[in-house]
Amino acid sequence: MTYPSLSGIDAGRELSRVRAAAPLVHCLTNSVVTNFTANVLLAFGAAPAMVVAREEVADFAAIAGALSVNVGTLNAEQAEAIRLAVASAILAGTPWVLDPVAAGALAFRTDFCRELLDARPAAIRGNASEIRALAGLASAGRGVDSQDSSEAAIDAARTLAERCGAVVAVTGEVDYVTDGQRVLAITAGDPLLTRVTGTGCSLSALVAAFLAGADDRLTAVASACATMAVAGQLAAREAPTPGRFAVALLDQLSLLDSRALEGALQ
Amino acid sequence: MTYPSLSGIDAGRELSRVRAAAPLVHCLTNSVVTNFTANVLLAFGAAPAMVVAREEVADFAAIAGALSVNVGTLNAEQAEAIRLAVASAILAGTPWVLDPVAAGALAFRTDFCRELLDARPAAIRGNASEIRALAGLASAGRGVDSQDSSEAAIDAARTLAERCGAVVAVTGEVDYVTDGQRVLAITAGDPLLTRVTGTGCSLSALVAAFLAGADDRLTAVASACATMAVAGQLAAREAPTPGRFAVALLDQLSLLDSRALEGALQ
Amino acid sequence: MTYPSLSGIDAGRELSRVRAAAPLVHCLTNSVVTNFTANVLLAFGAAPAMVVAREEVADFAAIAGALSVNVGTLNAEQAEAIRLAVASAILAGTPWVLDPVAAGALAFRTDFCRELLDARPAAIRGNASEIRALAGLASAGRGVDSQDSSEAAIDAARTLAERCGAVVAVTGEVDYVTDGQRVLAITAGDPLLTRVTGTGCSLSALVAAFLAGADDRLTAVASACATMAVAGQLAAREAPTPGRFAVALLDQLSLLDSRALEGALQ
Repeated sequence: MTYPSLSGIDAGRELSRVRAAAPLVHCLTNSVVTNFTANVLLAFGAAPAMVVAREEVADFAAIAGALSVNVGTLNAEQAEAIRLAVASAILAGTPWVLDPVAAGALAFRTDFCRELLDARPAAIRGNASEIRALAGLASAGRGVDSQDSSEAAIDAARTLAERCGAVVAVTGEVDYVTDGQRVLAITAGDPLLTRVTGTGCSLSALVAAFLAGADDRLTAVASACATMAVAGQLAAREAPTPGRFAVALLDQLSLLDSRALEGALQ
Repeated sequence: MTYPSLSGIDAGRELSRVRAAAPLVHCLTNSVVTNFTANVLLAFGAAPAMVVAREEVADFAAIAGALSVNVGTLNAEQAEAIRLAVASAILAGTPWVLDPVAAGALAFRTDFCRELLDARPAAIRGNASEIRALAGLASAGRGVDSQDSSEAAIDAARTLAERCGAVVAVTGEVDYVTDGQRVLAITAGDPLLTRVTGTGCSLSALVAAFLAGADDRLTAVASACATMAVAGQLAAREAPTPGRFAVALLDQLSLLDSRALEGALQ
Repeated sequence: MTYPSLSGIDAGRELSRVRAAAPLVHCLTNSVVTNFTANVLLAFGAAPAMVVAREEVADFAAIAGALSVNVGTLNAEQAEAIRLAVASAILAGTPWVLDPVAAGALAFRTDFCRELLDARPAAIRGNASEIRALAGLASAGRGVDSQDSSEAAIDAARTLAERCGAVVAVTGEVDYVTDGQRVLAITAGDPLLTRVTGTGCSLSALVAAFLAGADDRLTAVASACATMAVAGQLAAREAPTPGRFAVALLDQLSLLDSRALEGALQ
């Protein structure tokens, strides 16, 4: 079965909207990728803020444009901060994104992610193994790697989207984004995106940026995925090795404009 | 009103002094910028040490050449470690620097920074919003961004410097550095410095490096600001996008010598 | 006295074995180098996983190919997680590596490292000061810097290796690797490796990758050291400044093959 592709025109319009708004994105993310995530947001033109303390997260989630939650190095203290931030985001109407890193592989974080599903995330972004695990299906992940193709998680993504009222993005060789009814496919990208740590995690933060002030959440999430995938594709052309690729990815995120994004999605 | 510029000759001499001494800089900083801060210090020629545990910070602050404290991702545990480190630094005569990230925007860290002002920092380095907030004035910050120009914080900086006995640096498009009496201006820099996370935070660590063994603290702090600003200016010439700029900034910090710094400040 | 060099043929064979296996390496490391360590492992072709919570480390250490423990920013909470991970690794037969950052300079971590020596590390990787301190000798370190040459720690390394049943690597201008009986020398490398934070720490994670499934642990550890040293040497040729060097190091780790490694060690 084939799914419709994200429209280049829609993606270009979303990119322009987000860059003009420069939304403040509150990130509660893992310790491996905080720096890279902040630089991805800054390079694109959003404003990252990594506020982490229990004493501060609720205040900040209420004034941020969006909140990004990532459980990659979850511990009990961070879980408590995430609960406070998410509760505040919901009260304030701040959209929030869940990145369920390695859900399914480890019980502590899997249970926590399932608990968070009740708190109505605006979006969930993960690989096929993580999305299948959240939907209650068996998966073949080992930690952060997905051993499943993204296609194998489309049904799980739809189920999860319907159950939570969230847009769900399964990213991989092809990205699929669904609100439970519609499914959009994004075929850009490059394997080098898997050779640099934090490209998926920072994509989740970019998804949050695109959700700030979005009219159509499905298009917004898909456009964030397209932005990262196309920037990765362009970066790989000039930089075929992981060190230079990571640098070029930031550069391309800063250079990519609506026209180039639209052209790349034709 | 205009302020005298930092003398190029003074800045060049300070740069040579610090690089020859290769001071050990103890950093208690935020989780977003630890890696970049260490690399900034190493690239320039100082020796970073990120000792964080309550069990160790007091011992280490006593043997370090200087201590750099940054509240960007403050939590209760780190606040306790900072208190111990600062108390030990004062007893040992180790100069210490306060970087009050997002002070004014969030109560927990603002209160903590105000508490630390009693512990006689040798220097305080922040943007206009942060310095105004510490001085007790209203500010327009939203998290780490300053919405005020650095010029709008000069009076606040003088007041704060007099009250604490610290050198205060307000950085922005123009940097102003004051000991309460004198004010020095530094007009180098590049907007790309705001597109990479941690350039301000690592400047605070560089300020600490310049304070180790300094005779004239005003000149030392201003010279650290000039070093970062000129390195940023040179980096922007060869690298106009944020990914490559961050790499080039480290390179320029390693290459910059007293003569080039002196020339750039004419 | 001179020691035999690591055989290029052995090193090349080990490199090919590890890259083909793409082992899952569980890292409990310091907050300065988590990102760089993950990128070093990914660039080379291994699979990093930075699982840190007390609730998860035991489960993960049991399924990982190897475990890498680094005490660079040790605190009480991490010490507890490390104890759980190491105990699980031993039960499961997972080889684990100790990187005793700044042992000898600070009592808390030195005591903890000594406690861990009873838990039979497969390998210990440190600079001369750290290895001397673990063996109970006086050292001249100041934090993470070694003031001793690696040669001055060979006897300490042999003693430590015999006492713990571990392979011990002392890295510096020349690297020495010993199992207590044999000593292998690796003379590749470049001083720029000391101008980027985390090259030693990420080498310890690479040592863990090489230990996963190794037949001959002495050769495996020495080959990991040679891989980093030769990649550093090649990176320095194209990138003489620390910013570009760090990028080039990742690139060379991804490009280096068994033939090039073998050739470089002739």
